[in-house]
Amino acid sequence: MDTAPAPAAEAWSPRPAYWLDDVPTAYGHGPAVVLLDQTRLPAEEVRLVCSDVATVVDAVRRLVVRGAPVLGIVGAYGVALAAARGEDVKAAADDIARARPTAVNLAWGARRALAAWQAAGGSAEAALREARVIHEEDAAASAAMAGHGARFAAGLPAERPLQVLTHCNTGALVSGGEGTALAVVRELHRAGRLGRLWVDETRPLLQGARLTAYEAARTGMPYTVLSDNAAGSLFAAGEVDLVVVGADRIAADGATANKVGTYPLAVLARHHGVPFVVVAPMSTVDRDTPDGAAIVVEQRDGGEVTEMAGTPLTPPGSTAYNPAFDVTPPALITAIVTESGVLSPVSAIAIARMSAGHDPVMRR
Amino acid sequence: MDTAPAPAAEAWSPRPAYWLDDVPTAYGHGPAVVLLDQTRLPAEEVRLVCSDVATVVDAVRRLVVRGAPVLGIVGAYGVALAAARGEDVKAAADDIARARPTAVNLAWGARRALAAWQAAGGSAEAALREARVIHEEDAAASAAMAGHGARFAAGLPAERPLQVLTHCNTGALVSGGEGTALAVVRELHRAGRLGRLWVDETRPLLQGARLTAYEAARTGMPYTVLSDNAAGSLFAAGEVDLVVVGADRIAADGATANKVGTYPLAVLARHHGVPFVVVAPMSTVDRDTPDGAAIVVEQRDGGEVTEMAGTPLTPPGSTAYNPAFDVTPPALITAIVTESGVLSPVSAIAIARMSAGHDPVMRR
Repeated sequence: MDTAPAPAAEAWSPRPAYWLDDVPTAYGHGPAVVLLDQTRLPAEEVRLVCSDVATVVDAVRRLVVRGAPVLGIVGAYGVALAAARGEDVKAAADDIARARPTAVNLAWGARRALAAWQAAGGSAEAALREARVIHEEDAAASAAMAGHGARFAAGLPAERPLQVLTHCNTGALVSGGEGTALAVVRELHRAGRLGRLWVDETRPLLQGARLTAYEAARTGMPYTVLSDNAAGSLFAAGEVDLVVVGADRIAADGATANKVGTYPLAVLARHHGVPFVVVAPMSTVDRDTPDGAAIVVEQRDGGEVTEMAGTPLTPPGSTAYNPAFDVTPPALITAIVTESGVLSPVSAIAIARMSAGHDPVMRR
Repeated sequence: MDTAPAPAAEAWSPRPAYWLDDVPTAYGHGPAVVLLDQTRLPAEEVRLVCSDVATVVDAVRRLVVRGAPVLGIVGAYGVALAAARGEDVKAAADDIARARPTAVNLAWGARRALAAWQAAGGSAEAALREARVIHEEDAAASAAMAGHGARFAAGLPAERPLQVLTHCNTGALVSGGEGTALAVVRELHRAGRLGRLWVDETRPLLQGARLTAYEAARTGMPYTVLSDNAAGSLFAAGEVDLVVVGADRIAADGATANKVGTYPLAVLARHHGVPFVVVAPMSTVDRDTPDGAAIVVEQRDGGEVTEMAGTPLTPPGSTAYNPAFDVTPPALITAIVTESGVLSPVSAIAIARMSAGHDPVMRR
């Protein structure tokens, strides 16, 4: 274990989603939402120029762009694009909101831009301005989460730089800033407190192996990839000091939907007495969803499991169970970190107070 | 859920390993150990004709043949091959025993054939005879395990045909008969007691997706494949009634080394009150290994995780943590099923009594 101070991590950002006012498109020169195609990473960095809402919706469904916070930004830019192109803005907001049912930020971003457009009497400029505000707010929220999360981690009893396990991808690729859970890890790294980042590969689409490893490599963090099912061995060997994950929707009681494979880590963390921390912006909290049982989990095509890059992994005719997310109950979550602070322990009352703008309950 | 009686499963066997006396080989006509190449399944059924011990050892290392019971058979045939070809039989037995450090059956089979060869004054026929006995004993042990395991499962409270989760591959591909854990599932299927087999894909080498799904398809069992990390959602949804797995080494206290990913399932099963059952022949019990901490776990090349079929899944320079096995402590194991019966609860004393030839402690 290298305990020397870590080199300052570069302020690297992949710019996963942004707006351009005037580029060549299928409709002549005009506005576009530009998305870094995450399905092609890490092999190549390709950007998709979306010049209409249908292309944005398709990109969201195909996971060209994925991850809670950036989906909020993309939802808002999508509505701004509809407004700028003179499409039906309300229908566009609905299409975007429904593109992925579990990701609450998508609908949240689309609705905010729609509301700004409506409030300004159908102003495309107002929709775009709101989208840019959401983008900037997210960068600020990411920085705040990184700070709160790192301070929480600093309070953990530890005799060594922390060995942190994460699942899926929660970094600069999913954010206007450095992300959620991975932003906390980057902050720990900058502070010389990161021993190693354990990267769950995250089947079936390998967002950990492809994307988190890519971000770790680009930012100089010490990291090691593992099959999701090898995490048990790491816990048993005492090699995990902290689990940090993101969230795609947090119910009113704190139950958290996140990439499938998160819940088994929470059960393992509890079994081994390791803190399990969720990091997500307040926009991920959905107070209209009372608890975990009320969260609709997106079921994706079984082909994501039974094939890889078009090559069958299973015998012909095999079917697969392929939920995109699972739900972790609040009792297994040590803390929820948002831009407003740290909720620990997690409870419906504490979430309600934080949502209402109160200072979070700080118990650690 | 189809609750109609299941059709009688065919008595299908892939014949994963067998001996031929006289075939064309690299050394002219002579004996060979023939192995079904499991690395090419399910795409194609290719057999590897091994005409010397080095080829057998290489095949074992490359997982052409894998799985505890069949490795015992292959270990014995390998020694018989060395004897038949006039190789150094003792050196051959050592090489075979060391080919994979966690798989105790390999060394056990090699040593039994070596002992028979020595006892008969260096008789190649005696070594081969012993290998054939091991092969036949394993088929009989498999049938006995299937019966004991199915009777144990029949005693479980269940209001529906059982939904059974398994990990890795433990069927006819790893056995002289129908296998270990999967033999129990086939027996349940024949008895009309199987609702569905949930097949963990089993990263990194996908023995579940490739091999267990192949066996399930060939024997007409209803099955569904899942990413290993989706098992948590199945447990949470109440869709798992029983977990059955095999074993690569069982310590004297019942701690069980099995394919990586087994231990997380045991923790999940305990968290959800689902029985977790290990099925393995007595040859898997290693009384020289006192407990789980004493089990040496084979660490395999990280490339198994970072690449698939030569295509990189991670950024260049990524390293991976890739233990082949993990260890499940006896406290998380509801029962161990062997050809001698059912051990439940699992304890060092009960294992010692069973090993000594006593009837197993039957508590259910």
